[in-house]
Amino acid sequence: MIRPLLAVTLAAFATTALAAEPRARDLGIPFAFGTPGKNNAITDVPGVEVGHTTLIEGKDVRTGVTVVLPRGKSDEAKKPCLGGYFSLNGNGEMTGVHWIEESGLVDGPIAITNTNSVGVVRDALISYAAKRWPPKTNDWGWTVWSLPIVAETWDGDLNDIYGMHVKPEHLFQAIDGASGGAVAEGAVGGGTGMICYEFKGGIGTSSRVLDRKHGGYAVGVLVQSNFGVRHQLRVAGIPVGLEIRDGLVRPEDNGSIIIVVATDAPLLPNQVKRLARRAALGIARTGSTASNGSGDIFLAFSTANAAAAAETEKVVPVQMLPNDQMSALFEATVGAAEEAVINALVAGRTMTGRGGNTVLGMPHDKVRAILKRHGVLVEAAGR
Amino acid sequence: MIRPLLAVTLAAFATTALAAEPRARDLGIPFAFGTPGKNNAITDVPGVEVGHTTLIEGKDVRTGVTVVLPRGKSDEAKKPCLGGYFSLNGNGEMTGVHWIEESGLVDGPIAITNTNSVGVVRDALISYAAKRWPPKTNDWGWTVWSLPIVAETWDGDLNDIYGMHVKPEHLFQAIDGASGGAVAEGAVGGGTGMICYEFKGGIGTSSRVLDRKHGGYAVGVLVQSNFGVRHQLRVAGIPVGLEIRDGLVRPEDNGSIIIVVATDAPLLPNQVKRLARRAALGIARTGSTASNGSGDIFLAFSTANAAAAAETEKVVPVQMLPNDQMSALFEATVGAAEEAVINALVAGRTMTGRGGNTVLGMPHDKVRAILKRHGVLVEAAGR
Amino acid sequence: MIRPLLAVTLAAFATTALAAEPRARDLGIPFAFGTPGKNNAITDVPGVEVGHTTLIEGKDVRTGVTVVLPRGKSDEAKKPCLGGYFSLNGNGEMTGVHWIEESGLVDGPIAITNTNSVGVVRDALISYAAKRWPPKTNDWGWTVWSLPIVAETWDGDLNDIYGMHVKPEHLFQAIDGASGGAVAEGAVGGGTGMICYEFKGGIGTSSRVLDRKHGGYAVGVLVQSNFGVRHQLRVAGIPVGLEIRDGLVRPEDNGSIIIVVATDAPLLPNQVKRLARRAALGIARTGSTASNGSGDIFLAFSTANAAAAAETEKVVPVQMLPNDQMSALFEATVGAAEEAVINALVAGRTMTGRGGNTVLGMPHDKVRAILKRHGVLVEAAGR
Amino acid sequence: MIRPLLAVTLAAFATTALAAEPRARDLGIPFAFGTPGKNNAITDVPGVEVGHTTLIEGKDVRTGVTVVLPRGKSDEAKKPCLGGYFSLNGNGEMTGVHWIEESGLVDGPIAITNTNSVGVVRDALISYAAKRWPPKTNDWGWTVWSLPIVAETWDGDLNDIYGMHVKPEHLFQAIDGASGGAVAEGAVGGGTGMICYEFKGGIGTSSRVLDRKHGGYAVGVLVQSNFGVRHQLRVAGIPVGLEIRDGLVRPEDNGSIIIVVATDAPLLPNQVKRLARRAALGIARTGSTASNGSGDIFLAFSTANAAAAAETEKVVPVQMLPNDQMSALFEATVGAAEEAVINALVAGRTMTGRGGNTVLGMPHDKVRAILKRHGVLVEAAGR
Repeated sequence: MIRPLLAVTLAAFATTALAAEPRARDLGIPFAFGTPGKNNAITDVPGVEVGHTTLIEGKDVRTGVTVVLPRGKSDEAKKPCLGGYFSLNGNGEMTGVHWIEESGLVDGPIAITNTNSVGVVRDALISYAAKRWPPKTNDWGWTVWSLPIVAETWDGDLNDIYGMHVKPEHLFQAIDGASGGAVAEGAVGGGTGMICYEFKGGIGTSSRVLDRKHGGYAVGVLVQSNFGVRHQLRVAGIPVGLEIRDGLVRPEDNGSIIIVVATDAPLLPNQVKRLARRAALGIARTGSTASNGSGDIFLAFSTANAAAAAETEKVVPVQMLPNDQMSALFEATVGAAEEAVINALVAGRTMTGRGGNTVLGMPHDKVRAILKRHGVLVEAAGR
Repeated sequence: MIRPLLAVTLAAFATTALAAEPRARDLGIPFAFGTPGKNNAITDVPGVEVGHTTLIEGKDVRTGVTVVLPRGKSDEAKKPCLGGYFSLNGNGEMTGVHWIEESGLVDGPIAITNTNSVGVVRDALISYAAKRWPPKTNDWGWTVWSLPIVAETWDGDLNDIYGMHVKPEHLFQAIDGASGGAVAEGAVGGGTGMICYEFKGGIGTSSRVLDRKHGGYAVGVLVQSNFGVRHQLRVAGIPVGLEIRDGLVRPEDNGSIIIVVATDAPLLPNQVKRLARRAALGIARTGSTASNGSGDIFLAFSTANAAAAAETEKVVPVQMLPNDQMSALFEATVGAAEEAVINALVAGRTMTGRGGNTVLGMPHDKVRAILKRHGVLVEAAGR
Repeated sequence: MIRPLLAVTLAAFATTALAAEPRARDLGIPFAFGTPGKNNAITDVPGVEVGHTTLIEGKDVRTGVTVVLPRGKSDEAKKPCLGGYFSLNGNGEMTGVHWIEESGLVDGPIAITNTNSVGVVRDALISYAAKRWPPKTNDWGWTVWSLPIVAETWDGDLNDIYGMHVKPEHLFQAIDGASGGAVAEGAVGGGTGMICYEFKGGIGTSSRVLDRKHGGYAVGVLVQSNFGVRHQLRVAGIPVGLEIRDGLVRPEDNGSIIIVVATDAPLLPNQVKRLARRAALGIARTGSTASNGSGDIFLAFSTANAAAAAETEKVVPVQMLPNDQMSALFEATVGAAEEAVINALVAGRTMTGRGGNTVLGMPHDKVRAILKRHGVLVEAAGR
Repeated sequence: MIRPLLAVTLAAFATTALAAEPRARDLGIPFAFGTPGKNNAITDVPGVEVGHTTLIEGKDVRTGVTVVLPRGKSDEAKKPCLGGYFSLNGNGEMTGVHWIEESGLVDGPIAITNTNSVGVVRDALISYAAKRWPPKTNDWGWTVWSLPIVAETWDGDLNDIYGMHVKPEHLFQAIDGASGGAVAEGAVGGGTGMICYEFKGGIGTSSRVLDRKHGGYAVGVLVQSNFGVRHQLRVAGIPVGLEIRDGLVRPEDNGSIIIVVATDAPLLPNQVKRLARRAALGIARTGSTASNGSGDIFLAFSTANAAAAAETEKVVPVQMLPNDQMSALFEATVGAAEEAVINALVAGRTMTGRGGNTVLGMPHDKVRAILKRHGVLVEAAGR
């Protein structure tokens, strides 16, 4: 380790959903492309669980780790999902992608943390799996989760990122504390120290549930949002970023966004990859131009076809949604990705961190006033 | 040939710019990300020329071919550009991409036509080059343009697409008639029979010129737009497609969009490819979700570095813009791509074609009224 | 058309297998990785048919077109296969790949011809399909095979390639004459004018059938080989190209190779793509270094899962071979690809064509003598 | 950490070249495609340095880390190289590839270790860079090497891989001990516990220097070889793996190979990627079929164009070798990759490790005898 750890003990805690906090729809912000599920969260895809470990300590530590468990934290977690990824702008890291591309399998949780903690979280995922599910043979063979998927965005503005404060146990806590249901947003888990459109960013989530005609499938999105320059920001199509000019902190965009897309639609790997690409269209609706400094890497998986990686059968049956029935899933992905980013902004609260740097939470009232003036606010939904 | 050609002689003509027609900005529609060049067209990138051959004949023929000549139609056309491509949704065709990806070179014009005429246009490009610039040796060796770049969208709703009405001479005419300056939009060239968001679509173009601080480079975009379902359409961020509900013709999106991005910024092939990817973010701002039936394939090239494919020198000097100065080019691409699509819609006029099928031109007044109601219309720009 | 067609009538004929001609194994050349099927050809994959139209006329015409029909020429041909492609060196053309990559579907035949005839063959495939299976609706909608797959290599040394001698009817003939069983090799179909390692090249094929333990699946390979410089050539691992130095015609490698890999193993699209990549390892065993001028593009498909593109069901069942059972298929692909190239060389006969250019057929006796000297010839197999 | 560390102190040492050990050419094994450089090593590319930390302790620890420093360990190491990567079979990890693909830059060393230590080595690279070159601003901004490139192969057969014995200081030692000149091969650094074709494998290297006519460029290759089943092995084209049947340890191929290709030829990123792809052809010549369990991921970089990532200039000049002069580089890459694998095998010595597992070193005499019998041994080179 390059520099001594802080002497203080870090307060690592699994954040629970803050039910009382308004979300974007609560403020009257309208969104396109269908109806959210019960939680309006990635957890509306049955089986998906999310866990956060949030590290906020002293003046300098503002970081953490978030895990998305495609099949929850039960032993079902040993079964890979079919999946795919897309890099819109690769100025960032997501490990494990070679095997995803090769095999079409997403094996294990998706962990998201800060840039400098990708390694510790990666190795910790292997240690976790090897301890819980020791390799079968006495050969210390390959266990599940041996090519972990860990992504990152940069929180060095608010967090002492070179202090390497994320430890293996924080990853373990995030897994052990994962659950379905409502998902905490904003400055939690990996999103703790993140900045988005020069407002406080972080974790956001949203979902869509297709109507019966389109199969009734769920699509859920979770973002760790740390991108964007203010003037780009659009909310509900209105360029609010041109009007709200206080608290500007980034002369240029050096952030990133990691997006996880989940669905229970039975898709083959190349089809799931199509969803990952659509996430780009969702963030474009909020104003993103995927600037040079942004690591915009998107992963998608399907929880259907749990037997796809079975080791005991010669041939396994798989269910496949024909390609020409996928357009409704594309709209759902675009809509939920846009909404997840705005939810992250709505959940953001002003934070001061490393070096006294302060980032504003997006002011709800100003946004509402602008949308109202432009006649796009959903009045009945207001507070 | 499967079916007999129409007995009538096709009226093939190179369409010239219709200067009197309003474009999107003339209607007061606002756009983001900087300032257009003189023509607000792909031809604002110095050297780029565009040619159209438009085939409108009888009740059934509504098609054509458009060519973008990166270095114009002079002998400079023999010099490849550095370039790259991106397929957002590959339900379409763009030939020549293997060599683009391998070599980083865009060698020759980019031709855009209907789906069933890609082949004839492709081979005609080889014939054109071989006639004009015969292979040097007596060996009938490989000439320039030997791996032609031809893309397509489907005009079978308005055009007798199986009639195979595009002929080699139409490609020759498009090249010979190509020019810089204003570019005709709407139902011209390859865009003649196209449909976009269930309005008449086709060719659209736009540009941005960076300020001196960012190098003063030009970015130009040309689209052949044939995609989208009405309810998705957003103009200036306002979901006008939810309000204008007449003339609906497509229960689902089976169209496509081809986008050509040009710049004179000195970019390496992998950098040019980054621009191609940003085109996706531009069309997302108009509402696209890149539906299953859509062939959304984007090509970008840089006119700098004309010597990159020189055959006589051991090593050639190339100019490169550092990656961390590219973000302004990304914004320019996103902005111009959005505006090019809206320009195509604004240029669209109601057309009746094959089988009596009719597609409405987007009603300017209705769009203006909606934008005005939402307070986003640029009043001073109105007619 | 740039130059007048030859006045002579082209003799287009569907070549039948030349049963009496020896193949590589008949000469005692050993190959690795398992046992060929009955025909030692791509047609050992049940349902696969191959057709050639060979154009040899006068002094200058040495070309043609070959089609591989994944499900034969019956109406089964309307059902796509799951598939994928890989470009080892993209100095060539294979159309239709955007949709293959996006959808995982190989829809229609794979046609292989000369470089300048890709377009005419492409459009002819659409015309063929539209005539045989007219679009269902009165809307002249999209038919099957609307994004045709056509690949090429360059035969301009022996063939008047700018004469554009391949016509739509030649493609139709190739389809109509396609069959299972033995496949003609060497100077037939698209391979008519091709050169390989400076010997006469062209079409070659081979297969492997896995043992029951590995599922008993068949893997078949067909190549159109037009690549390589003599000194690179290895037969059975022995650098025969360093010894046989007569008839050298290419100071540098400007050729190409198209490889089609077929299997009946039930693979998902990303899995089939893995086979396409292995074809590269097969040609490497013959000495290929995939030189700059070579268009080395490989397509693979699986004939299993005929229902994968069904239009009538919400969800279709698909069979999938687990990834960890694929290695035997990889060995089969590598072995059959190597053998297919050597078979093409063995089938080559000295040919004189355009401009009096002559290319030698690989001398069987010299090769056998060299292999015998090195103790690798399978003596019992000799003539 | 899941399990307690061994109480013993690990003996970590930087291995130096074992000059007395024979290499493949010393045994008389012939190789194709030109002439090696002085060291017949990746270090023949000027500036490239290699460092190993080898961990051999007690009965169970057989692992380590190897670093390739493209511009050595001086402050030149802060300058990225233009580069690209290729995944032949993605059952493995190489971090940092998103940015390589996006930017065309290889920023920092390439580190290679065991599968379970990728994370610790990755984060250690950031810590190293941040300590040595603290971020300029008081903002704790992004430093160089912030998206580290770390690859792996699996040494769990011989090494207590779940013991997580590689520590940050081992990475630091490997960098600090890196040098040009001869490179230690076999059971050193990341290659310590590796197995190749069921013989002892590990690190191998080779090079080629082009003649003046082709620019005199150097191409160097370094492999960490851990792949292959015995029956596949070919040495100099001869299937020696079919004859040497003792010491078989792997019923199926679950290994991997990481390949690093270096050159001083002035190549653009897309051109460097072409070299990475050729590495596949090199290992194919040794018998590889890239089995399902193999993580075969290849990285290439060019040490030319040190200014490509300059931060201070608007536009930087870059040198580019035209594509049509690259074929000699391709041959060099193929040849050096083949030879590097065989060098790794030749350097292998019988090793016993975790659980008493023993892996044989490839018997030189048997190999020589087989090659001699087949008349391919270079007699004058023998001992």
